[in-house]
Amino acid sequence: MDQSKNRTELSELGEFGLIKHLTRNIKIKQKTSVRGIGDDAAVVEYKNKQTLITTDMLVEGVHFDLMYTPLKHLGYKSVVVNLSDIVAMNGTPAQITVGIAISNRFSVEALEELYDGMLLACDKYNVDLIGGDTTSSNSGLVISITAIGYADKDEIVYRNTAKENDLIVVSGDLGGAYVGLQLLEREKQVFKANPNIQPDLEGNDYIIERQLKPETRSDILELLKELKVKPTSMIDISDGLSSEILHICNQSEVGCSIYEEKIPIDPTTINMAKEFTLDPTVCALSGGEDYELLFTVDIGDYDKIKGNPSLTVIGHITNKSSGVNLVARSGALYPVTAQGWDSLLNKEEEV
Amino acid sequence: MDQSKNRTELSELGEFGLIKHLTRNIKIKQKTSVRGIGDDAAVVEYKNKQTLITTDMLVEGVHFDLMYTPLKHLGYKSVVVNLSDIVAMNGTPAQITVGIAISNRFSVEALEELYDGMLLACDKYNVDLIGGDTTSSNSGLVISITAIGYADKDEIVYRNTAKENDLIVVSGDLGGAYVGLQLLEREKQVFKANPNIQPDLEGNDYIIERQLKPETRSDILELLKELKVKPTSMIDISDGLSSEILHICNQSEVGCSIYEEKIPIDPTTINMAKEFTLDPTVCALSGGEDYELLFTVDIGDYDKIKGNPSLTVIGHITNKSSGVNLVARSGALYPVTAQGWDSLLNKEEEV
Repeated sequence: MDQSKNRTELSELGEFGLIKHLTRNIKIKQKTSVRGIGDDAAVVEYKNKQTLITTDMLVEGVHFDLMYTPLKHLGYKSVVVNLSDIVAMNGTPAQITVGIAISNRFSVEALEELYDGMLLACDKYNVDLIGGDTTSSNSGLVISITAIGYADKDEIVYRNTAKENDLIVVSGDLGGAYVGLQLLEREKQVFKANPNIQPDLEGNDYIIERQLKPETRSDILELLKELKVKPTSMIDISDGLSSEILHICNQSEVGCSIYEEKIPIDPTTINMAKEFTLDPTVCALSGGEDYELLFTVDIGDYDKIKGNPSLTVIGHITNKSSGVNLVARSGALYPVTAQGWDSLLNKEEEV
Repeated sequence: MDQSKNRTELSELGEFGLIKHLTRNIKIKQKTSVRGIGDDAAVVEYKNKQTLITTDMLVEGVHFDLMYTPLKHLGYKSVVVNLSDIVAMNGTPAQITVGIAISNRFSVEALEELYDGMLLACDKYNVDLIGGDTTSSNSGLVISITAIGYADKDEIVYRNTAKENDLIVVSGDLGGAYVGLQLLEREKQVFKANPNIQPDLEGNDYIIERQLKPETRSDILELLKELKVKPTSMIDISDGLSSEILHICNQSEVGCSIYEEKIPIDPTTINMAKEFTLDPTVCALSGGEDYELLFTVDIGDYDKIKGNPSLTVIGHITNKSSGVNLVARSGALYPVTAQGWDSLLNKEEEV
């Protein structure tokens, strides 16, 4: 019947058939998931815990480019960026719901790839896919995911609770996702100019993976528990270090000093930034999409975290009147401004 | 600075500025909302309750046509259709998160209209808007809402628990939203042919409102509590009576008989259906978007509900082998098939 064995049209299954097909292998694993897909609403129960809820949308042409983003990676990333918001509250992600608007130019197989990636992330982070909505779109692909998680009331870490003299800490390293994106964009242009040229990504696996397959740092929450350190405030780095530290400082009504020389940047990131004549520090400050954790700890906890290879102290909280500052290698002080990735402004620039 | 006082470009505010602007008047009202907008995730706490979660997407050109859908109505409806899924679990909706992908052809004022409608629905149904995401889109408007609610564990009513001999009940009346849509579509075509002709909607407020400003029947849950009736299964009618009764019967592994003459249809709906040479029963069965409740009750509860103007008994549950049947006015038996509104097939037809 169909012209190609490898392409099943969405319309062959219809909405209910499609949802049934895509979710046929989903098994509920979490005790907290009372009821998953198949009713008007999903049911979860976190006894004596508070519930954390976050929603993120990913829009084709704005947040991702299918020319260099494999659908499986996109599915994985779309889940991870949501789980990251639960983790940034010091919570345990446990469930997601998935809304997808998709045009008929996609096949059932393409959608399966996307789901495979989402379910891979669910497996890795012990999360159940408990509900959602799949619908058609007249144009691009839009993915909207809501992540649900839990934490004890006194475990939750907010953004607005940093205190003067707290140390500012980041996990992992920064800027990689941004230079990875620059590399992918460059190779896309090369490919568009001459489709016979193979993309030159060799030796840059790390930054490509930072862009295409980020992880959420739930391992850092484990580490902090082992170290008996509870952050005084926390946020995940989705829009760049500048933007996130401003959120913490503004909402906590404090200032801070961040030291340029302390910002952790991987050598691959530094080399690639230089290839693009970009300042690696600017990539770390404004690049975004690293999904590392930015948090503050009481200065008394310094001994517990110092020297840990996963954690870097990059500065400290000051009083509000001192402002939010970057201390450059030269010793000069620069006020930090939000030049994080702003999807609406970004869009405007593209037009 | 701006050319028109009535149009503020989205780019003038940027993403964070836009979210701040749109959410500036939002106040948390529910005790269960611990933390709303402004952190990585929202926090809710339902002590000793189970949590209900549902997500729905509304896509421009698929689920709504901005030519005849005022943005305020669209905002209202997009919230209501989600709350309806919580109500259909016999739960209390308490919070929503809102994801919006919007193109720059919309102004800040247009987005304010949309938010006004959403907040109006939040006010009416005592729900807090606690989080979300606003981003740009390269084309149409996409709205993704997640509704969160709660219920006692033994209060929740699922779809898969209907029992043989149960009575099948619907609230309100059916088919109105569908004929309302037909009327709006007709007037759109008339307008496109001659923009000087005013739309002829007189006397049809009821069906227009059924389409543009539906309500969720949380009042029916109250009524059932007063009557001391707990449904044995329940679903909301978003895709049409046929589709919903099939969900209940298939998931409960039972059959049913529905009587055509019992299906409640408003006179305005009947008249307008006839004007379009549509069978009013088909409009009720396949139209969808009425957001009434379809539920089953134990036959022993018949005396409690009979004669109630808000409730109509339309049939009863049979054993599985009897199938899912409509008993026509003629006495003839027709197997019920899912011809509800299927957004993917619907889309296919439009192409």
